[in-house]
Amino acid sequence: MSTRSGSEGSGAALSGVVPPLVTPLTPDCDVDVPSLARLIDHLLGAGVAGVFVLGTSGEGTFLTDDQRRRVLDTTVAHVAGAVPVLSGIIDASTYRARALLDQALQAGVDAVVACAPFYAGTHPAEIERHFRYLSERAGDTPLYAYDIPVRVNGTKLTSDSLVRLGQEGVLAGVKDSSGSDASLRRVLLDRADAGVPGFAVMTGSEISVDVALALGVDGVVPGLGNVDPAGYVRIFEAMTKGDLETARAEQNRLFRLFDIVKVADRGRMGPSSAALGAFKAGLYLRGVISCPVTMFPSIPLSDDEIEGVRAHLVTAGLL
Amino acid sequence: MSTRSGSEGSGAALSGVVPPLVTPLTPDCDVDVPSLARLIDHLLGAGVAGVFVLGTSGEGTFLTDDQRRRVLDTTVAHVAGAVPVLSGIIDASTYRARALLDQALQAGVDAVVACAPFYAGTHPAEIERHFRYLSERAGDTPLYAYDIPVRVNGTKLTSDSLVRLGQEGVLAGVKDSSGSDASLRRVLLDRADAGVPGFAVMTGSEISVDVALALGVDGVVPGLGNVDPAGYVRIFEAMTKGDLETARAEQNRLFRLFDIVKVADRGRMGPSSAALGAFKAGLYLRGVISCPVTMFPSIPLSDDEIEGVRAHLVTAGLL
Amino acid sequence: MSTRSGSEGSGAALSGVVPPLVTPLTPDCDVDVPSLARLIDHLLGAGVAGVFVLGTSGEGTFLTDDQRRRVLDTTVAHVAGAVPVLSGIIDASTYRARALLDQALQAGVDAVVACAPFYAGTHPAEIERHFRYLSERAGDTPLYAYDIPVRVNGTKLTSDSLVRLGQEGVLAGVKDSSGSDASLRRVLLDRADAGVPGFAVMTGSEISVDVALALGVDGVVPGLGNVDPAGYVRIFEAMTKGDLETARAEQNRLFRLFDIVKVADRGRMGPSSAALGAFKAGLYLRGVISCPVTMFPSIPLSDDEIEGVRAHLVTAGLL
Amino acid sequence: MSTRSGSEGSGAALSGVVPPLVTPLTPDCDVDVPSLARLIDHLLGAGVAGVFVLGTSGEGTFLTDDQRRRVLDTTVAHVAGAVPVLSGIIDASTYRARALLDQALQAGVDAVVACAPFYAGTHPAEIERHFRYLSERAGDTPLYAYDIPVRVNGTKLTSDSLVRLGQEGVLAGVKDSSGSDASLRRVLLDRADAGVPGFAVMTGSEISVDVALALGVDGVVPGLGNVDPAGYVRIFEAMTKGDLETARAEQNRLFRLFDIVKVADRGRMGPSSAALGAFKAGLYLRGVISCPVTMFPSIPLSDDEIEGVRAHLVTAGLL
Repeated sequence: MSTRSGSEGSGAALSGVVPPLVTPLTPDCDVDVPSLARLIDHLLGAGVAGVFVLGTSGEGTFLTDDQRRRVLDTTVAHVAGAVPVLSGIIDASTYRARALLDQALQAGVDAVVACAPFYAGTHPAEIERHFRYLSERAGDTPLYAYDIPVRVNGTKLTSDSLVRLGQEGVLAGVKDSSGSDASLRRVLLDRADAGVPGFAVMTGSEISVDVALALGVDGVVPGLGNVDPAGYVRIFEAMTKGDLETARAEQNRLFRLFDIVKVADRGRMGPSSAALGAFKAGLYLRGVISCPVTMFPSIPLSDDEIEGVRAHLVTAGLL
Repeated sequence: MSTRSGSEGSGAALSGVVPPLVTPLTPDCDVDVPSLARLIDHLLGAGVAGVFVLGTSGEGTFLTDDQRRRVLDTTVAHVAGAVPVLSGIIDASTYRARALLDQALQAGVDAVVACAPFYAGTHPAEIERHFRYLSERAGDTPLYAYDIPVRVNGTKLTSDSLVRLGQEGVLAGVKDSSGSDASLRRVLLDRADAGVPGFAVMTGSEISVDVALALGVDGVVPGLGNVDPAGYVRIFEAMTKGDLETARAEQNRLFRLFDIVKVADRGRMGPSSAALGAFKAGLYLRGVISCPVTMFPSIPLSDDEIEGVRAHLVTAGLL
Repeated sequence: MSTRSGSEGSGAALSGVVPPLVTPLTPDCDVDVPSLARLIDHLLGAGVAGVFVLGTSGEGTFLTDDQRRRVLDTTVAHVAGAVPVLSGIIDASTYRARALLDQALQAGVDAVVACAPFYAGTHPAEIERHFRYLSERAGDTPLYAYDIPVRVNGTKLTSDSLVRLGQEGVLAGVKDSSGSDASLRRVLLDRADAGVPGFAVMTGSEISVDVALALGVDGVVPGLGNVDPAGYVRIFEAMTKGDLETARAEQNRLFRLFDIVKVADRGRMGPSSAALGAFKAGLYLRGVISCPVTMFPSIPLSDDEIEGVRAHLVTAGLL
Repeated sequence: MSTRSGSEGSGAALSGVVPPLVTPLTPDCDVDVPSLARLIDHLLGAGVAGVFVLGTSGEGTFLTDDQRRRVLDTTVAHVAGAVPVLSGIIDASTYRARALLDQALQAGVDAVVACAPFYAGTHPAEIERHFRYLSERAGDTPLYAYDIPVRVNGTKLTSDSLVRLGQEGVLAGVKDSSGSDASLRRVLLDRADAGVPGFAVMTGSEISVDVALALGVDGVVPGLGNVDPAGYVRIFEAMTKGDLETARAEQNRLFRLFDIVKVADRGRMGPSSAALGAFKAGLYLRGVISCPVTMFPSIPLSDDEIEGVRAHLVTAGLL
């Protein structure tokens, strides 16, 4: 099985809408396997091109090894080859990420996604060593870099380094969650200059997907795509046809919907809880998952806050 | 065995110089057990009041579970009750830190040290849940909070929260590596107001230890204390006797010595590699450990850089 | 004379390419009036829709009152009504900006541009008082807000506040130099929701102008537009015709050209000197201005660095 | 008249408590000359060693040229040589600060205080040009550097540069408002190494003055010293006598009093308004000034907030 899904434009190994799945939980913070299966059905039914588990949206850094295995096994089995399964292997250092890599490979995922080391401060040359090591270990399984400075003490992957590692076959692509369209344009131009069309450039943005696709990204990995995968698929398809008006209108609707991450009271919980809690509340309200709780020690949304999310879903035409 | 070492001033459970041990490695990045044993002898011989393994200086987030176990077992066995052994249980979330906690308890440490969750952004109320959970799990083994904003995306533990958790018996103290004397003064005043003298306040500073002790901290946890433990013990003893001149002169010498962290070329390696590499180079040059390498993917100091460290040690009277 | 230049799309008071003029200087840091006149000719000849003096690119905060007057008088006289003249009135507080406002009004400019107060930290409600005061003082002369967080200690103007002040007639629009396409989309959507098409939204970006125009901004204010105004006019005209391919190709060329700001050695000078020095070097090499020096105490580009800029201009087809 | 006030320890040109005066205003934001005179009497009566007007606490960047002149003339006349008068000449660039310098010299101040350029980003070499230019212009009047990164986009003056400029006679000293005791220790050690005892090191801290004096600073410039100058004079005198206990107790009391800056609702006003408004409220409640308003566009404290400040003053024994 291959992660290649046929983007003629770039020849990249990955393209289309690849949502970073939330991890549905029971009220006691166990993995809710039936809800996860329904979430996968919900996404596949909307036409996604892949599923990405155990990323930031998947609360990968919150789960135990056993819980991660449950997520991996459920996903690989339930997707059953319909689309590629990508797994985050996000940990603070190379050798700790290696343990997650080994587990993901054993579960049979199609690709893995690693960010820069965090907690300790590292240099680009050290980050390259990190990716080279993990890529060699991964063998034939593609490794994607995950560029998410806001979560890793501000460490930004450089376009120069990414494209060079792409040329050398170390990296199959990058998920850019830097929030900067300039970052995307830089890596896309550098990719073109270097002649490595197979290096996939994906955006992690929820709110600038039309723009990112206009710039030439291969695919999109929006956390909000859990709640409204069909919306993002419509943007992708519209842009494929060159229908910018449709894409922009859809993105504008989803831009407003993304305000669900501001519903929860930030005086009571952190930004991660507020955002992931809102995604889960949206899925709960849409009947996809059974419980909107986020992982311990995250504080869950209140009933009032869940109603606040409902109002946004109604406005967005999802309820 | 108890971590209480008798600070009449505060009655805190921990006091004195408690260096955060580096983890000596072989050239292949395995734990170098004989070097670790020599490092422990070096520290105990200088009169330290405790040893803290698997913290930031110990590259705790870089090591595999097996390597952590090796460090824990070696340390507990070699210290043999002479002083308390503290272990860092630094991981991105509560449940992942729990696995490290269980391992540390099994190894028989005297206390554990946990920082706020990282990678995901959390709220003080969530951080309190994190500490409460770990403390309950730890049972009779004291839990210390580790306040190190620069490594955890800027998350700062609040004095209000720390002291309240101290009153409730959740936390036995805090290691403050925020680099702010105002932060120390705040928590010390709040501790006094709340009447919880048993709550230990330790500074993680290398360069302001005399000041911190003058403010009333119970102990010091300086990374540079690996290289010159006797110097920090002299500061502690001088301050205990009220001899500020001696303490200040000693601190000024160590302030200058701390410039070893600037020897390595930051255009070649990250700040963590540069600092830890310098500490290890110092120990290597002093004949304590066999190899100055830092953990993969960190880039090691060059021979020239090690010579640069040597010059500082000579100036500081250590060679 | 009016600043309205006919953008049917939004009805905004300002649209098109409005470069923020550098201030040409003599080697002794006096205003070089003949070079300024040539710069204006260079820009008008390329089809710009307005000229904006004494902004960040114009080193407005570096010039004395006399020098500012010279720039204003020269510009108003030389433009002679061909396009609107906007003047920055950038100072740390309301009353100090008022002095610059009075001077600009006396010189006969068509609009003024003010940023949030800086040095002191202010609240959005205080920033609103600032704009209301200046707007009332400006009378019929339109006031634009200048959103440039990176220069004002991170203070970000909020879309909510901007659009409300637009509705009330306090602000005629905003120049958004926040570098965030999400910020642009937010204010554009809020403008549409509020029904204030006359509120102009301009981007200060050099590197994402095609995207900004696709999102619906009325105009662009790129510092690099000093060097290649015709390039930005081509982007604007292409987007007006819906020719995205041309716009994107042109933007990509200018994206690469913008790397001239990285030519100078940052170990020798600050980022402002490096960027403005590169713009001036470009104008000098193209024969528009007589001397590439930036304002004291800025350090000028070396001859080698100017040659480095030349290489980029050749690649971009400008020499 | 000289700014030298006799610190045998360092020989520095300035020592003791030198409060940065707030600028008392009428309800209409004019300079309240009688209140300013009373403020000066209040400070001189408490034994301050100098007065520093038009700094950050003096809202120097908020005042018009006329208002600045009123403050300068009133202060120079009312102090009448009793202690040195220092004036801030804080503006975004060299030539704009020069205008403030000329005005201050004309008013007959004893010394001037300039920070690094702001708004534009500058390099240490450019900052040195800035200080050299202003120092030459100031002639025999001493120039002090003002290190306040939080207000100038994070620009930090380096110890290396400060001490070198001290050796060359460009700078007479530094007011360090970086909030870092390590910064103070560095410059004090470098001053000692370089052998320039006449270079004065002053701390701008309110909350770590005992520590700063223990480290060897010559004097203190605390904004809270407006409200309780006698308290800071007591710390200074206690430290001169080596009575650390008294100094620490006094500092701890003032540390708590400094919480008046947190009384005002930060959801309603900026940090500068909240802090300066609290200082002014304190002076108003103590009967020194007639009106607690801060400069437009700052939002004033509410009556409730002023009562909140009163409670702190009562606790601190000031009412």
